[in-house]
Amino acid sequence: MYDGLKGFRDIYPAEMAAYRAVIDTVEDTARRYGFREIATPAMERTQMYVDKSGEEIVEELYAFEDKGGREVSLTPELTPTVARMVVAKQQELSKPIKWFSTRPFWRYEQVQQGRFREFYQTNVDIFGSSEPEADAEILAYGADMLTNFGLDGDDFELRVSHRDILGGLLREFDTDEPVDVRNAIRAVDKRAKVEENEYLDLLYEAGLSYDQAREFDDLLLAGDDDLDELTAWSDSEQVHDAVANLQNVLAATEDFGVREFCEVSLTTARGFDYYTGVVFECFDSTGEVSRAVFGGGRYDDLIEDFGGQPTPAVGVAPGVVNSTLPLLLQRAGVWPDEAVSTDYYVLQVGDTRPVAARVARDLRESGNVVETDVSGRSFGAQMNYADSINAETVVIVGEQDLENDEVTVKDMASGDQTTAPVDDFPGDRAHPTLADFE
Amino acid sequence: MYDGLKGFRDIYPAEMAAYRAVIDTVEDTARRYGFREIATPAMERTQMYVDKSGEEIVEELYAFEDKGGREVSLTPELTPTVARMVVAKQQELSKPIKWFSTRPFWRYEQVQQGRFREFYQTNVDIFGSSEPEADAEILAYGADMLTNFGLDGDDFELRVSHRDILGGLLREFDTDEPVDVRNAIRAVDKRAKVEENEYLDLLYEAGLSYDQAREFDDLLLAGDDDLDELTAWSDSEQVHDAVANLQNVLAATEDFGVREFCEVSLTTARGFDYYTGVVFECFDSTGEVSRAVFGGGRYDDLIEDFGGQPTPAVGVAPGVVNSTLPLLLQRAGVWPDEAVSTDYYVLQVGDTRPVAARVARDLRESGNVVETDVSGRSFGAQMNYADSINAETVVIVGEQDLENDEVTVKDMASGDQTTAPVDDFPGDRAHPTLADFE
Repeated sequence: MYDGLKGFRDIYPAEMAAYRAVIDTVEDTARRYGFREIATPAMERTQMYVDKSGEEIVEELYAFEDKGGREVSLTPELTPTVARMVVAKQQELSKPIKWFSTRPFWRYEQVQQGRFREFYQTNVDIFGSSEPEADAEILAYGADMLTNFGLDGDDFELRVSHRDILGGLLREFDTDEPVDVRNAIRAVDKRAKVEENEYLDLLYEAGLSYDQAREFDDLLLAGDDDLDELTAWSDSEQVHDAVANLQNVLAATEDFGVREFCEVSLTTARGFDYYTGVVFECFDSTGEVSRAVFGGGRYDDLIEDFGGQPTPAVGVAPGVVNSTLPLLLQRAGVWPDEAVSTDYYVLQVGDTRPVAARVARDLRESGNVVETDVSGRSFGAQMNYADSINAETVVIVGEQDLENDEVTVKDMASGDQTTAPVDDFPGDRAHPTLADFE
Repeated sequence: MYDGLKGFRDIYPAEMAAYRAVIDTVEDTARRYGFREIATPAMERTQMYVDKSGEEIVEELYAFEDKGGREVSLTPELTPTVARMVVAKQQELSKPIKWFSTRPFWRYEQVQQGRFREFYQTNVDIFGSSEPEADAEILAYGADMLTNFGLDGDDFELRVSHRDILGGLLREFDTDEPVDVRNAIRAVDKRAKVEENEYLDLLYEAGLSYDQAREFDDLLLAGDDDLDELTAWSDSEQVHDAVANLQNVLAATEDFGVREFCEVSLTTARGFDYYTGVVFECFDSTGEVSRAVFGGGRYDDLIEDFGGQPTPAVGVAPGVVNSTLPLLLQRAGVWPDEAVSTDYYVLQVGDTRPVAARVARDLRESGNVVETDVSGRSFGAQMNYADSINAETVVIVGEQDLENDEVTVKDMASGDQTTAPVDDFPGDRAHPTLADFE
């Protein structure tokens, strides 16, 4: 007997039925916004990730040398791949480019609650617009997707921040060496996950004094309630522009009907280095799910870094399987039923296969989910099986009934049964039920 | 600029729209038969494949050592994984187990027309029935799936064979050493791909004399037209039982409505060693697509080999992306349109974002695919974009129209346009079109 790998999960039908319903909602919401599905490779050259994030990223990758001597990695996220795809066809793609896809990703990291080595994300991105409406559309997509599950403002919040506010403030401090903005922002991203001392140490290592680190942190918290406090403190054009941009994005979310789900939260920073403007994370309002449900933001420099023409971009990536979104849906009581469903089981008694098979085919042609016996089993065994697959209706094709040119139709919920003329069954009814025969 | 890896493909939206339509038909047909979706890991222990197929299989795998020192491989096919999953939960799963899933697989092999290193298959399997109805249901699924695309008996044929007929005949020849049945069957699988001499050499290496090899091949061809010739020649109980089993499966396909698509073809053998009974391959009847479109068969020993209780199994796996099925659909002229589709583009002229956004939201709520401007563009640029995404209807929200409490509705196919009261638009129409406003 073989075992599966740690951090990888086998998903059986009942659980998969729930995941399929989740993926359908996440994808349908994207389709309605005009995002177009793409499909992308599971593997890329390792160098692409090293160039973007440094050698240390390799520790978290499933990286290896393929049989042709190429250094390759399983994709840990989609953004570099879609950036590569935009660059490859940038002349022929009409802007804005709006793409989505649902796929597994792989990271070699510690397995813990809601975190696996293989997980599925739906990536939703807009390329080619730097306008606040693009950021707002991504936020509106995220909020609509959740409300389409039946969640409301008591369930979740989108914490919105801006990388240029963080970066601009950091650069205003009077330090001997220029502040290492990248590492200071990584420190902010860790703020809620580490002790305060460790957080301040990280800011100190990035070039702030401890007093400056505390002042910087006070500014972020003040900004959460009142961005005017920041603009009053700051003389930086970058900070003033970024505050105005953030306000414009929030104004657009008002028109887009999702402002109520958004709040300013400058201590939200996001981990990836490539973000440039608005960034955000979705959280469980009750705090029961402690990790971010999903996040996203603007990454205006990546396409150019990959050798393309300057192309602004913004996106979001909810994790749909083996990830955090399912935890929120479960906490909020909107997780779909974990059960398989079946419209009809066609039960054979005696030598009735030709008629049973014909009935099953006709029912399938109308779009029903239909099973019939493929194991040569008894009446009782077939009835138990019909029960195990939650068949709504059992059509009993028996030798005796057939002598009267009839079949028996049993409603499994009520237990009621009636007979119907076999030649008319199922007839042209699209989705016939017992009621049609009474 | 980075390049993708050889044998891996980036799929952009227009092509993906076609693939999505293909996957939907392949999966919907499976759902109607009561196959249940599962999801499975992209990676397994390499040993599982080596045990099943020998050390030489590693050459075709993306195999490597992970950071925890495990020898792992990207999955080259699904069968071993589902066998492992059946063994893991065999007590709680009610039989028959009927599963499907659509997923990428990876093989390190020569890239050629219609063959890539990453390709998608839909695997459809029944576990727990040794009855001919189970084989016939898998054949019926394969045929129905193709006819659901609009194909008919002039387009494809299912060439049906039986491993125990091949094995039983081979064992009847009088040889010094027992015939190496596994390698002889591999030779039959290569019959159409190599020169006759090479084919006979392979049978000779498996233990037949050249005369016996020719006699064996003549028997296979005779059996294609008349299985009675085989049973007259053979004294083997195994051969007689296998012929009866094959005939029972074909009789069941008659009841299941797909006998017309099936023909006996004993020179069809399939490559994998794990097959035990009926095997089959689907071919393009015109021969234009020369490789098998898909194949499958019975593998009754695999679950037990994997440490489970004896559990018969039969399945089929059409390749849906980067594979042969798309070539057949293209050849037959039923390949879906490669184009994105859009129900509405909501065009903003002047400062009309609040109204345009409200209209877009209402249209999306009725299930429409709707885009609106997120780039601050001119009337002409927006109209060009609406054209590029094949918008059926453009709703023009202009400052002047709004002064009269109206919007303009333009049908993009006819060019006709009319106005509608903005407060009523789109109203409670589920999928409003221009006709609703005339």
